[in-house]
Order: sequence, then C-alpha cells, then structure tokens
Amino acid sequence: MSNSAKENLEKMGVELPTPVAPVANYVPFTNSGNLYSISGQIPMKDGQLPYTGKVGVDVSEEDGYQAARLCAINIVAQMNVICGGDLGRVRKVIKLGAFVNCDNGFANQPEVVNGASDFMVEVFGEAGKHSRSAVGTNALPRNVSVEIDCLVDIAD
Amino acid sequence: MSNSAKENLEKMGVELPTPVAPVANYVPFTNSGNLYSISGQIPMKDGQLPYTGKVGVDVSEEDGYQAARLCAINIVAQMNVICGGDLGRVRKVIKLGAFVNCDNGFANQPEVVNGASDFMVEVFGEAGKHSRSAVGTNALPRNVSVEIDCLVDIAD
Amino acid sequence: MSNSAKENLEKMGVELPTPVAPVANYVPFTNSGNLYSISGQIPMKDGQLPYTGKVGVDVSEEDGYQAARLCAINIVAQMNVICGGDLGRVRKVIKLGAFVNCDNGFANQPEVVNGASDFMVEVFGEAGKHSRSAVGTNALPRNVSVEIDCLVDIAD
Repeated sequence: MSNSAKENLEKMGVELPTPVAPVANYVPFTNSGNLYSISGQIPMKDGQLPYTGKVGVDVSEEDGYQAARLCAINIVAQMNVICGGDLGRVRKVIKLGAFVNCDNGFANQPEVVNGASDFMVEVFGEAGKHSRSAVGTNALPRNVSVEIDCLVDIAD
Repeated sequence: MSNSAKENLEKMGVELPTPVAPVANYVPFTNSGNLYSISGQIPMKDGQLPYTGKVGVDVSEEDGYQAARLCAINIVAQMNVICGGDLGRVRKVIKLGAFVNCDNGFANQPEVVNGASDFMVEVFGEAGKHSRSAVGTNALPRNVSVEIDCLVDIAD
Repeated sequence: MSNSAKENLEKMGVELPTPVAPVANYVPFTNSGNLYSISGQIPMKDGQLPYTGKVGVDVSEEDGYQAARLCAINIVAQMNVICGGDLGRVRKVIKLGAFVNCDNGFANQPEVVNGASDFMVEVFGEAGKHSRSAVGTNALPRNVSVEIDCLVDIAD
C-alpha cells in the first residue's frame, strides 16, 4: 500500500516542496535507529504563510483544516528527503503532535487536525494511520494557525 | 510488580472501559518495535465528559486531578487492548505528555497531572514510574479540562 | 566531537547542577532501549526560578533565550546522571519539545528556544543537532517562562 505513496501524491496533484533547512542549531529530522523525529512543521507554501492567526477567529475551521494539511505536506516532504525519494520505505507514521492556534472557547481541534490525518492516510494508506495528540494553544511561531511535529518509522 | 496490575486495578475498584476507536483517520495506538504511542486521551467516562472547562475556574484543582486520573484510566485501557488483556507485558511507562486547560495565572499543572502519575504507579508499581511534561493550554478538544498522551514500552 | 562535551562545558564556564528528583510519582528520565525520555525541565538555578511570567511581557525575549538555555542546562544535567558522568555516551539529541509562556500576539518562540538549541550544539557539536517543536502556551508550572522536554539517544 505504502509503495504507491508517490502515485497517490500524483493522483492528488500534490507536488512535494524541496524543504529548506532551518537557519539555526536544530535540524529538520533526527533518528534513533528506524524511529525518526521530524521537527514541528508550519503551514508554509512557496515561502509564504497563507494561514495565520487563530482558527475560528482570523481563519475559518475549514482554513484550519487546510493549514493542517499543509503542515502534513511539509512533513511528508521531509520524509521524502529521509527516504532519498523512495516513500515506500515509510513503514508507519507513528505520531502526529498537533497544536492549533485558537481562542479560549475553541473546542474543534480534532476537526482541524483531521486535515493532516486525512492526508497521511490518503498518501500512505494503512501505514499512514497514526496516533496523535491535538491540543489548542494561544500562540504559535510566526503567528501560524497550526504546527505539527511527527514521529515516523522508516525502513533502512 | 507489574504482573499484579490487574489485581491492583481490582483492589482500586477500577474497571477498565472498552475503548471506542476514533471515527477518523488516526488510531488509538501505533508502535515502532516495542515502543507504543497512545493517542491523546481525554477524561471521558461512559461516553460522558464529566470534567470540562478550565481548571481553577470552571472546575477545581481536585477535579482537575480526577480528570487527569480519568485520562490515565483511558490510557491503561488502551494498553490493555495492546496487551490482549495481559497488562504484565507493560515493561515501562516511558512518558506522559499532559496538557491542562487553564487560565493565564494558573501555575499548579504538576498537582493536576499527579492524578495521572499517581494512577500509573498504583497500577504498575516501578514499571509505572514515567517521565512527563505538564503544561498549560488555553483550549482543548470538546473543552475538556485535561488531555494526556503516552509512550510505553510493551513486551512482545 | 561529543567526546569533548565535558571540555566544552568547562570552556563555557557552565557547571552542571546535581539534579533533585521530583517529589512525586514520576521520574526525571526513563528509557526504552537506548532512547531516553527526559521530563520537562524548567529554568531553575540553585533552587530559584529567575525567569517567570510571559516572554515579551514580564521578561524580555533575551531573558526568554536565557530561560531556554537554563532548561537545556538542566536537561544536560539529567543526561550526565544517565551517563554516570560520561557525556561522551550521548550519541544524538533526538528532540526538544519546547513551550514558551507568552501572550496571544507573541510569534518569536523560535528565537527564544534557540537558547536551548544553541546550548546543545555548543556542548555536543553535531551530536547536539536535534529536531524540535517550539510552541506558545498561556500558562506553565510555577509560572516559569519556558519548559522543555527531551528525547536523546545514549549508548550503553
């Protein structure tokens, strides 16, 4: 199933961006054996931040869903680097840790984060089914609407 | 010590719920080898959410403790599924990642999250002693008072 | 490179504190094989909390950077306990999970958390380059300005 990740991306019309390494003393990913940790990804596209501010206030819940999906695209772009372009090496998406920029009253973080969860399963099928946490926060870097990090098991 | 987890639960009068799988593209747990990641659990009991709102405002700190304990019960219920009912396979609770719904001024997240930490040690003894993070947040899914996820090492 | 961690600390004039175990049912670190999880560390120095309140309001961004650095010092102090004093056993800092106490408008969490990231690389060189997440929060334990937890790969 996960062997067709590249085909799935093509069918979906998603072109993975070429990740830019952070200009700081951290890196986009690390690993302990086959377990890889991918740094928190933000909804950046072509160097722009289309989704900023609080979900439910500054952007709609549907926009929040798209922001989460964009975080997931950037996560998969990092997996693609790890895999040297062979996404069939992704054995299991272990965990998404998702933070939704929102006001005190907001309670639909799960619906927002589904934008990332749905994407993972669309791309990887069973291997994309992950555990996750989805919580709210009052503030995120660059005022983005969603940030998501990831643990993933990748074969040698 | 951890072989008596079932006995400990009985002595405590805790009946583990039968977890309901999320209706979404994520799953309650995943694993990379013996390391299992359990999705963020909320204080749900019999399909109800007895603890909602901010700890210290809408619910008391003692209620927050009970909410954290209820999250931990739901985490152990997931472990029980992983183990096929044999909780003696739980080798070590590795980490609890805890989020407490609270106002800006609130500073007693550790006391709240102790509700989960105490439960883990009551059930598993030494194997239940875990690392943890305990932070505040301005908003959680369904407006629950606490959300906790878990990493746990489970033997084959 | 990481063999000189002790020398690097000396050059930097950093003396690692002797960690005090938490008075609760959690522990400073756990492990699943060579992967260690270190509990969320706060900016405590000599039993005092020099950085409390919101970064950008109660303390400056530069103070936030120092608070993050202090969290990192306390993380490395835990690694030192794990390693029995031989920090050369640290193979790779896998992940820092960082929470910055801030107001809604604050967007410079990355600059704050660089205080921890810079420290890890100053101490461990390449082995200190880690993945990370950096998010805001409205409240932290004891009202500290930053809390950071850590995953680290340590050789037997």
